[in-house]
Amino acid sequence: MLPGLSKCLQRIKAHPEGLQALHRTLKAKVYPPPPNFTVRHSSQFTMTAPCVEGMIPLIQKVQALHKDRYVSIQWNDGTQSLYPYVWLRDNCQCPLCFLQSAKARKILMTDLDVTTGVERVLLTDPTKVSIVWPDFHTSVFEAEWLRKRCFSQPSRENVQENLFLNERYYWGSDLRIPTVSFKEVLTNDKAAFFWLTTLRSTGIVLLKGADIQQGEVAKLSKRIGYLRLTFYGHTWQVQDKTDANNVAYTSEKLNLHTDYPALHHPPGVQFLHCLKQAVEGGESEIVDGFHVANLLRKTNPEAFSILSSVKVDFTDTGSDYCDFAVQSKNQIIDVDGEGHVVRINYNNATRDSVLNLPVNQVQPFYDALKAFVNLLHSPDNVVSFRMESGDIVTFDNWRLLHGRRNYLSDPDSPRHLEGAYLDWDEVMSRLRILRAAVQGEN
Amino acid sequence: MLPGLSKCLQRIKAHPEGLQALHRTLKAKVYPPPPNFTVRHSSQFTMTAPCVEGMIPLIQKVQALHKDRYVSIQWNDGTQSLYPYVWLRDNCQCPLCFLQSAKARKILMTDLDVTTGVERVLLTDPTKVSIVWPDFHTSVFEAEWLRKRCFSQPSRENVQENLFLNERYYWGSDLRIPTVSFKEVLTNDKAAFFWLTTLRSTGIVLLKGADIQQGEVAKLSKRIGYLRLTFYGHTWQVQDKTDANNVAYTSEKLNLHTDYPALHHPPGVQFLHCLKQAVEGGESEIVDGFHVANLLRKTNPEAFSILSSVKVDFTDTGSDYCDFAVQSKNQIIDVDGEGHVVRINYNNATRDSVLNLPVNQVQPFYDALKAFVNLLHSPDNVVSFRMESGDIVTFDNWRLLHGRRNYLSDPDSPRHLEGAYLDWDEVMSRLRILRAAVQGEN
Repeated sequence: MLPGLSKCLQRIKAHPEGLQALHRTLKAKVYPPPPNFTVRHSSQFTMTAPCVEGMIPLIQKVQALHKDRYVSIQWNDGTQSLYPYVWLRDNCQCPLCFLQSAKARKILMTDLDVTTGVERVLLTDPTKVSIVWPDFHTSVFEAEWLRKRCFSQPSRENVQENLFLNERYYWGSDLRIPTVSFKEVLTNDKAAFFWLTTLRSTGIVLLKGADIQQGEVAKLSKRIGYLRLTFYGHTWQVQDKTDANNVAYTSEKLNLHTDYPALHHPPGVQFLHCLKQAVEGGESEIVDGFHVANLLRKTNPEAFSILSSVKVDFTDTGSDYCDFAVQSKNQIIDVDGEGHVVRINYNNATRDSVLNLPVNQVQPFYDALKAFVNLLHSPDNVVSFRMESGDIVTFDNWRLLHGRRNYLSDPDSPRHLEGAYLDWDEVMSRLRILRAAVQGEN
Repeated sequence: MLPGLSKCLQRIKAHPEGLQALHRTLKAKVYPPPPNFTVRHSSQFTMTAPCVEGMIPLIQKVQALHKDRYVSIQWNDGTQSLYPYVWLRDNCQCPLCFLQSAKARKILMTDLDVTTGVERVLLTDPTKVSIVWPDFHTSVFEAEWLRKRCFSQPSRENVQENLFLNERYYWGSDLRIPTVSFKEVLTNDKAAFFWLTTLRSTGIVLLKGADIQQGEVAKLSKRIGYLRLTFYGHTWQVQDKTDANNVAYTSEKLNLHTDYPALHHPPGVQFLHCLKQAVEGGESEIVDGFHVANLLRKTNPEAFSILSSVKVDFTDTGSDYCDFAVQSKNQIIDVDGEGHVVRINYNNATRDSVLNLPVNQVQPFYDALKAFVNLLHSPDNVVSFRMESGDIVTFDNWRLLHGRRNYLSDPDSPRHLEGAYLDWDEVMSRLRILRAAVQGEN
């Protein structure tokens, strides 16, 4: 339990300087917070809306509105919620309809009468509603359960933000990378929760103090659940290799890119552990791809439109964990149904020479890509830093683009990073479980 | 090498009875082919188009068209191809611009002049074009490489079909499930290639003759590359369990569903190995979800429109490989930009009670879902079969819905299936590699 944390998180959402308050609360070894965030508010979200947090009000009155086929609930805070008959019947929580051990619906859609009426509604006490259905099956719903599922727009928005944490802090070159102790993250739930919420909102967290040996990124993956195996192995060694099967495995400069757009579902999160830095060069560069894509949308809408609609072929062929011949089609800027940028898919090395465009659309495509790449590399947007042995940078591979300068190594002790991938679903799963542990939720 | 195979595959694509010819050619232990396919032709695709197969024509003439900034190639079969300057420069295959060991582009987008002119084009011999750029960098392109990347529409469609095999055979209740010997698939590349191409086009292949022990699905995954770990483990045991963490781990009837829509990227392919069948019941049911979704689009366009646009919340909470709290939002019918149904995401058990819809859109949503479910369960669409010990059913979990009847087990030897998941990218990778091996391609 950490009574202050929830309030701190609200402050962070409103004011990034609230991070400092959270740092004090966590008492974990943390480093200065990033300034100058731009907060994307997903519509009218507020953390304090009554349907998610705070005291659950009591039920004053319940009524079946047969014409509209809604059950109406009057709460003692003066608000009202409507619940469709069919939704209530579908979500009966009794042991015949719901398997408690799996927290899953048992009632089959083939058995659900979607035109069902209601025989009777009863307020057994101010926290419980009973519904008797025409076949005399009875459902009992708790006030808290119903309140959370209120169909009003603010309530639904709160629930969605609570489930998916889609709010983002956008940043430019003045980001100070949020930094936490690796060992605290492994052993302290509050530090781990801070790590993952910051990774979600900011897209990057630097962990300091890992041991100088392989296996640390695997250890960090276990803290979440499991890593994602790819054709490059469970974890992979970024070194200058003979007959490199990937441009990353050379000492050359790498322009800003996301990893593995040759997969249709590229890894959501990436860990990179520095075991040995180069003698000269090898500095890392990062950029907030969502921020830059939104800048492009404003300044060059035609380029944005091309890059968010054209499906680009990516290719990756070779042998590592085993032999592979991977092909994908991805938009360079992925936008969801509501127009939000949700993923950047761009690695110039694996962009295929196969380009599925009519010949007269090829030049406009290159013009658009060049405009985006110019904006990505603009000094206003790029953050440069140099990893030291024992640093693990953890970042959102769907959002950040990363690159590195070319380097010169000590031949007896060459530059060496170890990397691992995870998916966002698994990371978000651990974040929800940590939140429940830290905030004492169910 | 198997000279007849390519021709056989062409026949299959045109006429499903061509499967029989392939069976004879493969000389693997295969079973009767499925009748009554409906073939979805992805526009005007033909396997015999000159740009993909057959003799590569020679180059008769090459010319730089400065006004349009295209290089024009006149082939000795009378056809012409145009290639934009910028695309040619971007895809220079010289060792400075292209890393042969990784088959990846080295030239950086920041270094690419997207407005480049051409200094000179040369036809060094009828199979090679040289381009001298204004900075005197020179690129040499092979005729075969260029021909494959011709920007004409039929050529691009051929290349895309060759890369992604998006052609599907739709089927109803009269499908006879394609069947192959498990041991042949493990040891014979032609049988494995037949298995994966049929899995891709038909969505299901039954493998017979696996040993009656755990580990066979893992062995099959290794034949492809690797399986996909999930919160249910590397492989998972479908049995009637106390305090089941999933409705599948009971002896109850399971309506038609896809697995794991609670992930944003559900597993593409599923293996289920029958180690022990029930004494009574437990029959499997499958349906072609793409076929039924298309039927719905024709017969009830409003329902189709709702199910292909509403993002439904799915939830999966519990503990298995480790503890998990998974949440996703997926359309029940996923449609790509061109209107093709590309994935079904539907498991009634994990469909969340959280439903992010305005209250007046809830009833239409249930009406649409009920219409789809009724069509899925129509006797015209469902194929029933009973797995026997040693059978491994392999199927497209993005396309097929599967279910099972409730069952009664022998308490001393209960019903037991072992399952595993893979992703389509990995399966397609193996398919491409097998095709190259079987057809003697590069």
